[in-house]
Amino acid sequence: MTSIINVNLPEQSYEIAITSSSYANAPSSLDQLGQQMASLKLGKKVLLVSNPTIFKHFGERAIASLTSAGFEVASCTLPPGERYKTLNSIQKLYDIALENRLERSSTMVALGGGVIGDMTGFAAATWLRGINVVQVPTSLLAMVDSAIGGKTGVNHPHGKNLIGAFHQPRLVLIDPDVLKTLPMREFRAGMAEVIKYGVIWDAELFAQLEASKRLDQLRYVKSDLLYSILTRSCQAKADVVSKDEKEGGLRAILNYGHTIGHAVESLTGYRLVNHGEAVAIGMVAAGQIAVDLGLWQKEDTERQNALIQKTGLPTQLPDGVDIEAIIEALQLDKKVQAGKVRFVLPTEIGVVTVTDEVPSDIIRQVLRGM
Amino acid sequence: MTSIINVNLPEQSYEIAITSSSYANAPSSLDQLGQQMASLKLGKKVLLVSNPTIFKHFGERAIASLTSAGFEVASCTLPPGERYKTLNSIQKLYDIALENRLERSSTMVALGGGVIGDMTGFAAATWLRGINVVQVPTSLLAMVDSAIGGKTGVNHPHGKNLIGAFHQPRLVLIDPDVLKTLPMREFRAGMAEVIKYGVIWDAELFAQLEASKRLDQLRYVKSDLLYSILTRSCQAKADVVSKDEKEGGLRAILNYGHTIGHAVESLTGYRLVNHGEAVAIGMVAAGQIAVDLGLWQKEDTERQNALIQKTGLPTQLPDGVDIEAIIEALQLDKKVQAGKVRFVLPTEIGVVTVTDEVPSDIIRQVLRGM
Repeated sequence: MTSIINVNLPEQSYEIAITSSSYANAPSSLDQLGQQMASLKLGKKVLLVSNPTIFKHFGERAIASLTSAGFEVASCTLPPGERYKTLNSIQKLYDIALENRLERSSTMVALGGGVIGDMTGFAAATWLRGINVVQVPTSLLAMVDSAIGGKTGVNHPHGKNLIGAFHQPRLVLIDPDVLKTLPMREFRAGMAEVIKYGVIWDAELFAQLEASKRLDQLRYVKSDLLYSILTRSCQAKADVVSKDEKEGGLRAILNYGHTIGHAVESLTGYRLVNHGEAVAIGMVAAGQIAVDLGLWQKEDTERQNALIQKTGLPTQLPDGVDIEAIIEALQLDKKVQAGKVRFVLPTEIGVVTVTDEVPSDIIRQVLRGM
Repeated sequence: MTSIINVNLPEQSYEIAITSSSYANAPSSLDQLGQQMASLKLGKKVLLVSNPTIFKHFGERAIASLTSAGFEVASCTLPPGERYKTLNSIQKLYDIALENRLERSSTMVALGGGVIGDMTGFAAATWLRGINVVQVPTSLLAMVDSAIGGKTGVNHPHGKNLIGAFHQPRLVLIDPDVLKTLPMREFRAGMAEVIKYGVIWDAELFAQLEASKRLDQLRYVKSDLLYSILTRSCQAKADVVSKDEKEGGLRAILNYGHTIGHAVESLTGYRLVNHGEAVAIGMVAAGQIAVDLGLWQKEDTERQNALIQKTGLPTQLPDGVDIEAIIEALQLDKKVQAGKVRFVLPTEIGVVTVTDEVPSDIIRQVLRGM
């Protein structure tokens, strides 16, 4: 079974292709990479970018698929982890692009999680003022979130994703089978974004997640539910991005849980807490802020928090994080306007509102309670 | 007198405003910067980027104009010259943007020549995934060419402008009076691009240049002619860019003289020969290639070369540049497709054609003749 989800944009639309070989005897998505790219009439040269572990698992299959479709493939790996998401790594990609004489019609293929996707996207956005990028996400987080929507970039030593560009992929290819090698903690991190879509956009997805007995490990998630998680999450992201490519309005709702989440990630040096865990903490905080402001029912916050707990994600601030430091870090958020911090707050399951009128004292009080 | 030239683009159009106080008792363009920006409803925070010399001449006036229009202005300078057009300089701008808490609604103002404009534009393109940029070009080259059209970027150690992005300015403000402090060699460099517009687009401009007795120094150029040079060149660039924002087709013609020009610049380390001089050499070469291929009249090449000489620009390869090294460097050009080098070649004054079918032997033979 293959689901195709369209991301419709004024300048260039593209498809998210999700194929599960568990459902059909069809070849797995990953083995169709070359064929799918060939149908887009991209130039011959491809640079496949991955990290060493992912490359070991899937690199050869990806290269074989590309080569048999007629592409000329070079490949490279970058060290894994958010702390290598720096301009230095991008400079390495530039050097490799130069060595391999990539041209404007060439394509960088990101085979990996969010870090690889963001960096490859940014390098593609800024090499020769923009070449093609294809996203082949291998983590749940990247599949349902970062690979879609064209946000690319790297971290500044003092803030996450401060350096970047919008650069839409030509194709997003999702192969659910590759999740089998995903470490448990990474799976849970991806589930944070899935729960987010339930809260901000898709009450039916939220209900499906509630109905599942366990969500803390992939092997307890039935393949029907996994397929639903992938397609519904991608559809939610595609819907929002199609309506607002560059975060002028609606797209802001995707930052639910991310305002405080980013601050927590940054203050823990992008190591102690991963992105999904930080978003989980941020959703708990935002939910409580919404309750304190009289916007959301207490019972709905509790349903949200129960789902987060069932997934094995944190609902409390990590030890040693200073609350005043969080308040200070919020001022660095990209969404700050005229010094006002923007919060996405739920009003019911599946519906959120955006406000920059949250008093600092309410934020402090909520964080102290966590 | 103020001329407004519109650059019409699908996502965001903008104006090129050229005011000459020599014609009216109106305040000079530079002193209207704040007012003009205020009318665009940009955010309060502005980072003015310049180089030390330009800042000494015009920085205070620009800041005064911005401040009196209600903007909160920070400023910084970067060292002058093409060899500082690197990712390192961009990192400095990121640090300053962070220190000054620039927001998405904030604006970077580039007050300077092409190098300052390209770097400020690229930093603005990639800070917070894109903030506003306003171009206030102070060199002739930047006024008629680099400040218009949204090309931004920096050099890779092995090639010019290999790293970059398209990022359109919100406003281009041209004050002809600031040219009075421009060194003679820089003036001539800008004239190379002006002559280019004459050859590729505007036979009337070409004729006006021919009619002027001297073109080698600004003080010999009558103010009528200077105004015509600025408005006609900007109009030519705006026409082409409006029809083809991202170099999909027509925009290629702006690279007349740039194919061999870029190679020469790169091989001389961006020092011995400046951009305009390299373009002049490239136009002489391209003109001769066009003649050798039977596309252009010999007399017209001679008219072009006479104009280049009258401006005091070089028509010969600099000593010590190896012809085979040029042929090799051409392969690194951003416009290479499937290994084929693209040339813009004149067919009459004001009309060019684009081809990737120039045999290497013709290129060699032409270069040997220079």
